[in-house]
Amino acid sequence: MAMTTRVYNFGAGPSMLPEDILKEAQEEFLDWQNLGVSVLEVGHRSPEFSALLNHAEQSLRELLFIPSNYHVLFLGGAARTQFAMIPMNLLSPEEQAGYLVTGVWSHMALLEAQHLKKAYCIASDGDNGYKTIPEPRNWDIKENTSYVYYTPNETVNGVRFPYVPKTKEIPLIADMTSALLSEPVDVRNFGLIFAGAQKNIANAGLTIVIIRDDLLEKVPTPQVPTMLNYKIQAEHHSLYATSPVFNCYLADKMFDWLKAQGGVEEIYRLNCQKAAKLYQYLDNTDFYTTHVDPEVRSIVNVCFSLKNDKLENEFLQLAQLRGLYGLKGHRLVGGIRASLYNAMPMSGVDALIDFMSEFAKENS
Amino acid sequence: MAMTTRVYNFGAGPSMLPEDILKEAQEEFLDWQNLGVSVLEVGHRSPEFSALLNHAEQSLRELLFIPSNYHVLFLGGAARTQFAMIPMNLLSPEEQAGYLVTGVWSHMALLEAQHLKKAYCIASDGDNGYKTIPEPRNWDIKENTSYVYYTPNETVNGVRFPYVPKTKEIPLIADMTSALLSEPVDVRNFGLIFAGAQKNIANAGLTIVIIRDDLLEKVPTPQVPTMLNYKIQAEHHSLYATSPVFNCYLADKMFDWLKAQGGVEEIYRLNCQKAAKLYQYLDNTDFYTTHVDPEVRSIVNVCFSLKNDKLENEFLQLAQLRGLYGLKGHRLVGGIRASLYNAMPMSGVDALIDFMSEFAKENS
Repeated sequence: MAMTTRVYNFGAGPSMLPEDILKEAQEEFLDWQNLGVSVLEVGHRSPEFSALLNHAEQSLRELLFIPSNYHVLFLGGAARTQFAMIPMNLLSPEEQAGYLVTGVWSHMALLEAQHLKKAYCIASDGDNGYKTIPEPRNWDIKENTSYVYYTPNETVNGVRFPYVPKTKEIPLIADMTSALLSEPVDVRNFGLIFAGAQKNIANAGLTIVIIRDDLLEKVPTPQVPTMLNYKIQAEHHSLYATSPVFNCYLADKMFDWLKAQGGVEEIYRLNCQKAAKLYQYLDNTDFYTTHVDPEVRSIVNVCFSLKNDKLENEFLQLAQLRGLYGLKGHRLVGGIRASLYNAMPMSGVDALIDFMSEFAKENS
Repeated sequence: MAMTTRVYNFGAGPSMLPEDILKEAQEEFLDWQNLGVSVLEVGHRSPEFSALLNHAEQSLRELLFIPSNYHVLFLGGAARTQFAMIPMNLLSPEEQAGYLVTGVWSHMALLEAQHLKKAYCIASDGDNGYKTIPEPRNWDIKENTSYVYYTPNETVNGVRFPYVPKTKEIPLIADMTSALLSEPVDVRNFGLIFAGAQKNIANAGLTIVIIRDDLLEKVPTPQVPTMLNYKIQAEHHSLYATSPVFNCYLADKMFDWLKAQGGVEEIYRLNCQKAAKLYQYLDNTDFYTTHVDPEVRSIVNVCFSLKNDKLENEFLQLAQLRGLYGLKGHRLVGGIRASLYNAMPMSGVDALIDFMSEFAKENS
């Protein structure tokens, strides 16, 4: 086995995984559960994988206190398919949905809903470059709205809702791709929650959906492709087609890991500390700047830029040499982004701040 | 590192992978390309992953001699989504498609096409239990058929087309999930080829699509969900959304492995030898029986049963104790199925025949 020098990976997703989990997976990579086969080679309908998937679902239910009237789905592919599945499954031709637009991802989700069905924007901070969340008193939730959609944490823009939107009786749908398991959530507030795995759950290629059972009754089966039908996926316990076995295996390990860390409340406490330390540094320097309003700053995607943006490439190159990987901001907005998901230890934040201080000193 | 005792895995998919490839992936599992991160943690838009994806595509083009007017897509999720994507992308409301039904998968594909668009059955051996391929002279290909769909190798039923159907000018579409890379294919005969990865390509969670460029022009963009739109996926070089990075990484290794084995012609020669040996044994025993017509027998999924089916469970249990894993037939048809994909060595076939002979002797 080659020596490894692991770095701190600030990538926004695929992102850092706990080294202990990687080592465990590495150890059993050729022989899972003494079956003599790799987990990559195990049948998705084998009793061993069924047990794994049940265990993973049970762990997630425990971690998030998911009530029994919610289904948990482990679906293959990217979360972006949900942008289509949600309106396809939950809107009839005469219905419409309202979208809160607070960054790139909720904007894309709105466009896809409008592409396929009727949807409108409840409020947007787009003209302002997504720096804040529009005041709820200015939200325009129309009558006859079948669901309200929002993105609690906008991964690209670093904007986070510090509260759950109030929608009265209208089902609330949340893209929690970068938020799920990084902070507590009261699932009872939601009709549907989804999350791509590649932040806090597993490697890329798996999407978790948590859906309240009454919403399944809305699915207009004749129009929806079978693979995209929530009801059919729920009836088949996510095994309508071949599962992304390895991703589920890793998710199961990650859920156990999170339980061992003390669960979601405890990881949230640590995540808040990590973010607070980095924002405190940013607030006390003139060399870097962050444009998101302090009260809606993300705790897992800290976006900032160098006041002299000509230094950005040098910053990124030197950071990588120092073992600080994946700091480049999203290609649509540029700048720097430090993603501090569950697997990032405080020592990573400290190393980043040390580097930023030195770089600022040398270039001031 | 724990000692491993690898078994022969006859599972139909997810299925056996070459031990050398697994060991290589295990070795670099914590540190890929000296980046200090696992390949599970690498960004899908990083230069390293872009290079990998380009290399994988290039390798596949070399292995299958894919002409330049074909796009190669690496899509996340299960191949079954293609059952919907094909009619959604390639049929306008007034058009229809014809399906050759020679087993469970082509039957399912027809049902999904009929669920969403207009499609009909050209010919089926369903009433006969899928033992043969209906004679081409009895095929009913209607006028105004936009494409003809078939499944060159039916994984569940063990039925294989020993020829490519002639459809004149009508584009031919093939589900090659269990056939791709196990035998030569002249891509020029096809409008679209797709294959789930979990047989000869990688682990489950990736689907390869090879599509001729003129078919992309048919896509009725306004009706198709963006993630399911071949044209958009092609324009984004499979990176419209987050890729299943690890599956692509493994596919890239598998393509290199296949090149090192001598390519598709050479692996086909070996696959034919493996299948011939097992069928020869089956043809010379009264204890086991195989019901597929000899001229359409699959070379990668050898389906058979015990004449006394009460012994089936005992057969499967003893086989597993002997290191012969995954021999249970598909739940829809029962019986025994030995999948002999590229990674299965001749020694696995020999071990299976030895066991079958002993079991027959002890129970005759």
